Amino acid sequence: MRPAACLLSGGMDSATAAAVARRDGFALYALTVRYGQRHAQEIEAARRVAAAVGAVEHRIIDLDLRWIGGSALTADLAVPKDRPVEELGEGIPVTYVPARNTIFLSLALGWAETLGAQDLFVGVNARDWSGYPDCRPEFLEAFERVARLGTRAGAAGAHLRVHAPLVNMTKAQIVRLAVDLGVDLSLTHSCYDPAPDGAACGRCDACVLRQRGFVEAGVPDPTRYRQ
Amino acid sequence: MRPAACLLSGGMDSATAAAVARRDGFALYALTVRYGQRHAQEIEAARRVAAAVGAVEHRIIDLDLRWIGGSALTADLAVPKDRPVEELGEGIPVTYVPARNTIFLSLALGWAETLGAQDLFVGVNARDWSGYPDCRPEFLEAFERVARLGTRAGAAGAHLRVHAPLVNMTKAQIVRLAVDLGVDLSLTHSCYDPAPDGAACGRCDACVLRQRGFVEAGVPDPTRYRQ
Repeated sequence: MRPAACLLSGGMDSATAAAVARRDGFALYALTVRYGQRHAQEIEAARRVAAAVGAVEHRIIDLDLRWIGGSALTADLAVPKDRPVEELGEGIPVTYVPARNTIFLSLALGWAETLGAQDLFVGVNARDWSGYPDCRPEFLEAFERVARLGTRAGAAGAHLRVHAPLVNMTKAQIVRLAVDLGVDLSLTHSCYDPAPDGAACGRCDACVLRQRGFVEAGVPDPTRYRQ
Repeated sequence: MRPAACLLSGGMDSATAAAVARRDGFALYALTVRYGQRHAQEIEAARRVAAAVGAVEHRIIDLDLRWIGGSALTADLAVPKDRPVEELGEGIPVTYVPARNTIFLSLALGWAETLGAQDLFVGVNARDWSGYPDCRPEFLEAFERVARLGTRAGAAGAHLRVHAPLVNMTKAQIVRLAVDLGVDLSLTHSCYDPAPDGAACGRCDACVLRQRGFVEAGVPDPTRYRQ
């Protein structure tokens, strides 16, 4: 089996992207970054998902991004709540973390080099999304070029690829794909502002998109919400 | 003064690139990464250089890359010594650190976002160099595209730039430029395999290139070499 480096956040999308990689015959090397996110429950979710999806290896690395600031996920800014779903994806919300996907893909790229992997998987989505610039297909294509030009393998002619199998899917399609692939979505965590016991708030952008995905897919939502 | 995020390794090239940024009127925000490099003297050199060059702020962040491995700078591989100078730049040596410049530029990019900076400075060089793929102009251009597509500022139309003022210079030209700009090169550290007391080995690729730079520039070499 060919190795692939997979970014795994602990959310629904990256879990499903990892399941796609497994379905496509890759040996999964999962990478999770503890970056100072307030929704640190993600990390435990990532552990559960990595085990469930059969990752060969799961690395959780520490890279505190709180010094960069500028985001409601890493700094003392309020997480927006109760935004109408039709507003999501319009403009870039305060939950955007500066350059996060560039940073995480770079780390996955470095690992891919020593794994001898030519494939990176990432669960980004640019349809039912929060409008983050680093989730768009044109960004991923640009990063692919960086990967090919900036590495030993790429310089030797390897055709490095960034796979984003969910990039054009709706959240409902992602839920259905996850179910088809046997992903246990109850293991995943999406909420940006969970209660101390891990219950999802049900009101942040991530919760709103996730809830709508389950409703539109006609799949029961296993998420535990705050009472 | 416009802010610029400058990668500062503690070596001669990044010190000179920072001095170029200062000459060009930028306010310097210097970023150094403690990544588990065996030549950790670099970090202290970076501190000295940041102070000397008048950086507004100097961040030293921890991001251990030893888990990625695959490099003589971060893993238990021998640093090559006494390679003929004409061989350097032919092929990619074992001192290449997987995806290092992509990772470091990504971090500088994230910081640039919150600084409101549109300019990144990096001291890479693709002439008297070690053949690292992520020092080439085409890599830098590709990264610039990532920066413009993957950030809030870029998505709003900001023309983010990656400045690599030394990319086409010989080491001798860099030495002369440093002298012209008043950079005290005795503060800098290039050696990949220094003695415990910080003395340079004089035999690794970085030392060989540095020594030749001083000789060809006709500038006395202030480096302290191992006896």
